[in-house]
Amino acid sequence: MLNIPTIPPIDLEAEAAARARQDSLTKPPGSLGRLEALSIQIAGITGAARPSVARKAVIVMAGDHGVTVEGVSAYPSEVTPQMVLNFVHGGAAINVLARQAGMELIVADAGVNHDFGPRPGLLDAKIAAGTANYLEGPAMSPQQCIAAIERGAGVVRELAAAGCNVLGFGEMGIGNTASASLLTHCLTGRALSDCVGRGTGLDNAGLARKRDLLADAVSRWTDSSKDPLAVLTRFGGFEIAMLTGAMLAAAEARMVLLIDGFIVTSALLVAQRLNPAVIDYCVFAHCSEESGHRGQLDFLGAVPLLDLGLRLGEGTGAALAYPLLAAACAFLADMASFESAGVSQSA
Amino acid sequence: MLNIPTIPPIDLEAEAAARARQDSLTKPPGSLGRLEALSIQIAGITGAARPSVARKAVIVMAGDHGVTVEGVSAYPSEVTPQMVLNFVHGGAAINVLARQAGMELIVADAGVNHDFGPRPGLLDAKIAAGTANYLEGPAMSPQQCIAAIERGAGVVRELAAAGCNVLGFGEMGIGNTASASLLTHCLTGRALSDCVGRGTGLDNAGLARKRDLLADAVSRWTDSSKDPLAVLTRFGGFEIAMLTGAMLAAAEARMVLLIDGFIVTSALLVAQRLNPAVIDYCVFAHCSEESGHRGQLDFLGAVPLLDLGLRLGEGTGAALAYPLLAAACAFLADMASFESAGVSQSA
Repeated sequence: MLNIPTIPPIDLEAEAAARARQDSLTKPPGSLGRLEALSIQIAGITGAARPSVARKAVIVMAGDHGVTVEGVSAYPSEVTPQMVLNFVHGGAAINVLARQAGMELIVADAGVNHDFGPRPGLLDAKIAAGTANYLEGPAMSPQQCIAAIERGAGVVRELAAAGCNVLGFGEMGIGNTASASLLTHCLTGRALSDCVGRGTGLDNAGLARKRDLLADAVSRWTDSSKDPLAVLTRFGGFEIAMLTGAMLAAAEARMVLLIDGFIVTSALLVAQRLNPAVIDYCVFAHCSEESGHRGQLDFLGAVPLLDLGLRLGEGTGAALAYPLLAAACAFLADMASFESAGVSQSA
Repeated sequence: MLNIPTIPPIDLEAEAAARARQDSLTKPPGSLGRLEALSIQIAGITGAARPSVARKAVIVMAGDHGVTVEGVSAYPSEVTPQMVLNFVHGGAAINVLARQAGMELIVADAGVNHDFGPRPGLLDAKIAAGTANYLEGPAMSPQQCIAAIERGAGVVRELAAAGCNVLGFGEMGIGNTASASLLTHCLTGRALSDCVGRGTGLDNAGLARKRDLLADAVSRWTDSSKDPLAVLTRFGGFEIAMLTGAMLAAAEARMVLLIDGFIVTSALLVAQRLNPAVIDYCVFAHCSEESGHRGQLDFLGAVPLLDLGLRLGEGTGAALAYPLLAAACAFLADMASFESAGVSQSA
């Protein structure tokens, strides 16, 4: 039985205090646009009228997918462990972008099909060496699903205890856009074809094949309950299940959740069904080029900060959006007021 | 007679080398979207296949506008010197956001109607104590216009000599959206009403009055040559003229120009008419909420990085976009290649 984290309500007093302060600052009211609303949201999340980032991190969860034997990706599944090692050695995009943003990077093996052994810089949270092929049965057992969610929550509770209050979410796993497409179809009711995209770069023939395979996967599953845990067990990945748990625990701890792209948002769709209050804690970093992400954002009523045609994953969008969040906190905290600066107001 | 800076062509070899390197990095080709194109553009601008930011700054030019006696702004013109002092004391939005971005801030008095005296942190580049009212005649003399452009160029040449290679442009001046509207109308041919917006926050009656006044200003000017210097002389501000010269000198020195919002882009419209090659050196930071900016961007064929509903000016959009530029340089320079990291490529 899954113990779903309890998420506190947003602090409305801190929000109101931040809103009042915004209107006292030396700028035309509203002139910092969406960053003003963002600063007020962060006040509500953290409970501080002048919020500051205590410690910020990106967590990248990695896992392999049994379905890759069917050919749903432009890259072979060996790339999952190769990229995990690239993260550990500091050469991947998320290494560079997290460093650039001043964010700590945490890499977790949620279920990669490779024995890394004990390795500094890699968190061993492995549930199993990849999921099973969901064309032939469930991707994971109910016990594995719950274990992955709880392990994800556990990782975040340790970060919270260490003072982290802004957390970006990322992932790596060859085949995981396919998984995310199925979760999105089942949890939003959107047509499957609208949820399936090119992932790491399928050509037209590859995309058609992926669509057919995923339609087949849906038709072979007779459960129509739409229960989020049942959907996650059938079609999920270990990294996705672990992200779900991580998000719920992050909201429980009043962290700001920086949501990356299509796969991370599929984990959020599960988290949101388990505890809808998680959404209040989310800042949506960007709109991905992966088709299907826009539909997820619309379903959640989310407006992302960036729209740069990114489709890399790894939490790269979250790291790129972080400076906007830091800027929103900074100007709320540090700008002069009309009164303190002796600036005349509008009539 | 104005001496228009010579702008070197973009370095196509550096661009090609950056493009080739992009495709060797450990990510699906194209998956960093617009940031890949941005990194290639910066390579072409700077002439380095792996460009880096040597020294980055935001320059804010301030000036007063004679037309404010007619009532075209929500704020009184005393706010221009008050805000300049706020910049000098570190309390304005651009102070906070430049600090956050790690950019040096340079504040220049291009023509504020106030005697600041010698003051550390304020560059005295004053042409006169505000422009004349263009409802009654030209805003400035041709000599003043040329002096402002050349003084702006001179300020930037000093920055270039000190090693600055990324420069954001900002402005402050009560009444300057009105000036920018007239420049935009004259230089793009767009209907005046599409070029006029609420500025710092006019209500509907104020906006209607501003539209009427600016239509009147256009009808009183009989010169229809559309010569950019004639337009700038008639309707410009000293801060806008100085920005024009600053931009041309920045492109001459192969700097990356970070273009802010509506007023800064109006200065670019003049610069582009004087030397069209300036555009190759421009990165467009954001699309402003001030109506008229979208039309300027469309006219220039520019696609901005951010769209956050900002309408503050001061170079705030440029400072907010800077981390994206830094990130684009960093991942081009620092990511591992497929070969160096031992990662398999797609079929």
